[in-house]
Amino acid sequence: MATSHKPQPPIEQLTAQVIESYRSEPGTSHLEATFLPSRARVIEAIEVLRRIIFPGFFEEKRITSANVQQRTAELIQQLHDLLYEQIHQTLRYELNRTQGKGKGDECKNCGQQAADLTLAFLSTIPGLRHNLALDVQAAFEGDPASVSTDETIFCYPGVDAIFIYRAAHEMFRLEVPLLPRIMSEYAHNETGIDIHPGATIGESFFIDHGTGVVIGETTIIGDRVKIYQGVTLGALSTKGGQAWRGRKRHPTIEDDVTIYGGAIILGGETVIHEGATIGGSLFITHSVPAGHYVSMKDPELKLRPPKKNWRPRSQKKSIE
Amino acid sequence: MATSHKPQPPIEQLTAQVIESYRSEPGTSHLEATFLPSRARVIEAIEVLRRIIFPGFFEEKRITSANVQQRTAELIQQLHDLLYEQIHQTLRYELNRTQGKGKGDECKNCGQQAADLTLAFLSTIPGLRHNLALDVQAAFEGDPASVSTDETIFCYPGVDAIFIYRAAHEMFRLEVPLLPRIMSEYAHNETGIDIHPGATIGESFFIDHGTGVVIGETTIIGDRVKIYQGVTLGALSTKGGQAWRGRKRHPTIEDDVTIYGGAIILGGETVIHEGATIGGSLFITHSVPAGHYVSMKDPELKLRPPKKNWRPRSQKKSIE
Amino acid sequence: MATSHKPQPPIEQLTAQVIESYRSEPGTSHLEATFLPSRARVIEAIEVLRRIIFPGFFEEKRITSANVQQRTAELIQQLHDLLYEQIHQTLRYELNRTQGKGKGDECKNCGQQAADLTLAFLSTIPGLRHNLALDVQAAFEGDPASVSTDETIFCYPGVDAIFIYRAAHEMFRLEVPLLPRIMSEYAHNETGIDIHPGATIGESFFIDHGTGVVIGETTIIGDRVKIYQGVTLGALSTKGGQAWRGRKRHPTIEDDVTIYGGAIILGGETVIHEGATIGGSLFITHSVPAGHYVSMKDPELKLRPPKKNWRPRSQKKSIE
Repeated sequence: MATSHKPQPPIEQLTAQVIESYRSEPGTSHLEATFLPSRARVIEAIEVLRRIIFPGFFEEKRITSANVQQRTAELIQQLHDLLYEQIHQTLRYELNRTQGKGKGDECKNCGQQAADLTLAFLSTIPGLRHNLALDVQAAFEGDPASVSTDETIFCYPGVDAIFIYRAAHEMFRLEVPLLPRIMSEYAHNETGIDIHPGATIGESFFIDHGTGVVIGETTIIGDRVKIYQGVTLGALSTKGGQAWRGRKRHPTIEDDVTIYGGAIILGGETVIHEGATIGGSLFITHSVPAGHYVSMKDPELKLRPPKKNWRPRSQKKSIE
Repeated sequence: MATSHKPQPPIEQLTAQVIESYRSEPGTSHLEATFLPSRARVIEAIEVLRRIIFPGFFEEKRITSANVQQRTAELIQQLHDLLYEQIHQTLRYELNRTQGKGKGDECKNCGQQAADLTLAFLSTIPGLRHNLALDVQAAFEGDPASVSTDETIFCYPGVDAIFIYRAAHEMFRLEVPLLPRIMSEYAHNETGIDIHPGATIGESFFIDHGTGVVIGETTIIGDRVKIYQGVTLGALSTKGGQAWRGRKRHPTIEDDVTIYGGAIILGGETVIHEGATIGGSLFITHSVPAGHYVSMKDPELKLRPPKKNWRPRSQKKSIE
Repeated sequence: MATSHKPQPPIEQLTAQVIESYRSEPGTSHLEATFLPSRARVIEAIEVLRRIIFPGFFEEKRITSANVQQRTAELIQQLHDLLYEQIHQTLRYELNRTQGKGKGDECKNCGQQAADLTLAFLSTIPGLRHNLALDVQAAFEGDPASVSTDETIFCYPGVDAIFIYRAAHEMFRLEVPLLPRIMSEYAHNETGIDIHPGATIGESFFIDHGTGVVIGETTIIGDRVKIYQGVTLGALSTKGGQAWRGRKRHPTIEDDVTIYGGAIILGGETVIHEGATIGGSLFITHSVPAGHYVSMKDPELKLRPPKKNWRPRSQKKSIE
């Protein structure tokens, strides 16, 4: 109905201008390029993996001992096909990018390599399940508001983010380009928790609430560590930018450390030693010895009393 | 096309390994279990409820006095059916979980109970609409950048989060297991605002921007309270974990309090009394008297001047 | 199967109650109103624009010199039709809202106006591409963990948020009601980064990680500025609420400034001058001179040693 007034737009002219800009700004175009991975397919793969890792939780149909064999085989086949295609694309994309256009198209052993990497990834699933069972238990034990481990699998963004991190980290260890980061940014988008797939994280890890958490690429985290929303494990000033690639820029957090909400811990040489506790909202750029509790010294606050004639609304009501 | 090289993967062997891990790590499996609620259906129910609560805002078709009756009846029927099924599932799931497998399957009065709870929830809709009208008005009045109450319904994540919180809280008061938390985590995921469905929140509540806000289970908030992004109303050290279940662990915020961005207020005995204002980025673990304004005392900053030969880029340009 | 017990709910009665509440709380209803824009369609338009701005990155099919002309024309036509319809709706909605019901229905030149605004927006695409190419380069250079500019387009929430901001800002400059804010809240929802479409942002802008960033309506940002997660560029106490509409309430950030994570900078007269660096977690309400580095003065922390008999778990193990 709204279209009666609609004049014909000069689509041809606009198209020509836009295409001209593809020539003048080629860095943000991806013309001629085959083999770019698909974000949508990578997300699909994560969702299939979730059903394999936590069987029965995210299925429409009941999984029983009678059908578990067949359903699991189906899901693994589906995951295999998705990952094989995305890894194959990405390997050839990476060749084109690093060795010059056309190299990816010619690649003869990329198919075999993709098949090997896919199988290598799939074979980590039992280990992932073992680690995630420990993480889920840590989430349940760590949060007084949680009612059951099932609830943490169903609802906890921390568990969701750790699941995707652990999978992305395996992909990162297999040195598959680009896909690990696409996976971790999906988790970031879903949960507000940003864990670089290169980070090293021990057993029984728990993130409560989680929005705003950032864990950098070269962070090392021990076992039974617990962190809250807004915690940053980051790098000090990186004025150097690309010059800093590959160096240890992010802190080391040893076993049994707890870090409260909003604490910011920076620097590649900063070590929070075993069993230490970091209070909320702290800014830490030096190491903390084992077992110590760090908090703010006398938070000096200014308290300004209300004006003389101020009266709480509740009293005003009762007088009027 | 990419599939020509693709070798047949050893799916059978991988499946066997994964199924073995379902036996060795049963805590993260949900085999044989019926009656798990569906996260996707719960989200669907929230979206139907949104159309009932804010009629006309999220509809493809114009709602007029001629069709409002029919359309509303349709949506209520749809919401009823979705909730009835999810509540029925959840009640039986909870019986299986707490009283042993099979108890949920045998439950004879779960159907009647689900029907009663569904009706009890639906009958809160007019009250929810009343409360949300006050929240929408508070959002419009509280944000100088807002243009109309319509805009706050359309775009404000704070309004979105409060809408879902108020609905989840009604479900929580009806003691429906699991669903309230699934609802609140959907809001958390959509908005970055994490309000536990158990929290008690008064009238005319406004959250501006909102990313990173955390409001814990036993928080009590009065009327006309306004909070900004990154505010935490949380628990002090919960080393005790599950031992703390049920106790008041989170603060009380009285009527007419404003809390600026990034302030962290902790502890079950902490009371921010009527009409107080809490400055941004503060860390508060003690009560604040009525009408007072709390801010940081002389934020002591270090100012390091630039190197002698430093010159702003703009000046460099004008010289060159 | 669960439906056997299901009693017929009193849908008629519930419907009557809800419709009664539409009468008593009209502020949150949108009955009789035509012409409300559709959030879903606006998001669709953003996704089409993304494919035009970054050709080849988000396509299922390979884009080559043979098909780029046709594909681009298709996408531009699609974007045109989506925007034309949404702008037309919104113009008439705004007339109804500001000049009384029925005024929008009668509007004779709204169609022509919508067509002009749509073309004006489409003609900004080459300029948007130029600016975004600079932003993408800044993201790659600014983050030591990034591997290529492609990766930043694919995965970086900062790039995603800036893309949507730049598009929403063009719509804002064309004074189209409501749509710019719907666009920016989509970015907020996807990335946790909240940039008001009215903010003014120079070239080569980079936001790293990004969750929790808030940039207010009247903020002015120069060229080559870099900010991290959790940074707020906000207003001081806005007790005045709607009285403050239109005034400069948010800071000015000059060229070549870096602001680390969690820093909160407030106030319309606060200027961070050229080349200054603001340390993490600072709370700034005064201007900072050019080239200076601001950090916290001796962060005074309290360090409580562990109890006498405390021993790290690792040693306990080695003894036992």
